Amino acid sequence: MTRVLLATRNPKKLVELDRILAAEDVSGIDIIGLDAVEPYPEEPETGTTFEDNALAKARDAVRATGLPTVADDSGLAVDALNGMPGVLSARWSGTRDDGANLRLVLDQLADVPDERRGASFVCAAALVLPSGVEVVATGQWSGVLVRRPRGSNGFGYDPIFVPDGDTRTSAELSPEEKDRVSHRGRALRMLVPHLTSTLT
Amino acid sequence: MTRVLLATRNPKKLVELDRILAAEDVSGIDIIGLDAVEPYPEEPETGTTFEDNALAKARDAVRATGLPTVADDSGLAVDALNGMPGVLSARWSGTRDDGANLRLVLDQLADVPDERRGASFVCAAALVLPSGVEVVATGQWSGVLVRRPRGSNGFGYDPIFVPDGDTRTSAELSPEEKDRVSHRGRALRMLVPHLTSTLT
Repeated sequence: MTRVLLATRNPKKLVELDRILAAEDVSGIDIIGLDAVEPYPEEPETGTTFEDNALAKARDAVRATGLPTVADDSGLAVDALNGMPGVLSARWSGTRDDGANLRLVLDQLADVPDERRGASFVCAAALVLPSGVEVVATGQWSGVLVRRPRGSNGFGYDPIFVPDGDTRTSAELSPEEKDRVSHRGRALRMLVPHLTSTLT
Repeated sequence: MTRVLLATRNPKKLVELDRILAAEDVSGIDIIGLDAVEPYPEEPETGTTFEDNALAKARDAVRATGLPTVADDSGLAVDALNGMPGVLSARWSGTRDDGANLRLVLDQLADVPDERRGASFVCAAALVLPSGVEVVATGQWSGVLVRRPRGSNGFGYDPIFVPDGDTRTSAELSPEEKDRVSHRGRALRMLVPHLTSTLT
């Protein structure tokens, strides 16, 4: 088994990457999270793009641990907010409280009519190897924001995001359904060939 | 005296336009606010630009009152927020509380370094006459956002905005100083010739 660090403390993200690797019939890779390695000083994410943040997070982890590392930065780009919260999605309300961040977006869009409530989830996923090899992949998922949260799967802004072509929010999709179409699923799947070819 | 409606309930804005007219040696115009006219249903500001909102507000007022009307829409365009809060400046936190809106911007920029804290105040001022004549003028005022509020003049985001070429926040400028250089002063002064020529 090759150990690969996923630079996160979010257990849902660890399970997600395991599920995506299994769905792609990848074996022999043991995904571990930040809780399984020696703590190191983590820099705040201050990049202006998802790609910058994902790469910076992965590079820091490789430097500290020597392990091949996958890191991601994701967020919601709301049309009526000129693409924000964007890289500030996880702390849009000034806190890291998902509920407060979601409520703030709903409040900010209170007077925005249905035809202008478009939004996209974006995920940049970076793979950095101790050899210096770096790969970044970006996935998008387009839809609209509804006015009332629905569903309990997922996290973040999932309960108010209805993907194009569906009537359910992304918090009402099963994890497997979501992997197939989501920004995160798309970005992480693009890394899989690099994970398998560079690690063997 | 010709009565001109300034479509606002903010007494500071009434005083401001009086002051600007006096500084331009304009007399014979009596500026009144919305509190001095019969109430009418005011539409929410849902435009995507300051100009749209200012024009819509002025048109509504002319339709309801038959008075020549000046209306404005102003806001803060923050570089690191892709130009937001923009048209949502007055209710960025989901409330119309200036203090809460300012604190939210500070919190959202907490990790944004000094060199990326640029921002501009923008004001669109519209003059609409019962004859159908319409004029819109836009003023800009560029600067940077500091991390701690200073000063007690002005309103909104004034206590955290330091205009280019100054070290004081706009809340530390006197009203007369501010009129000379601010987005609002610039936009309103561009309307003055139209006010004087079209009303006499």
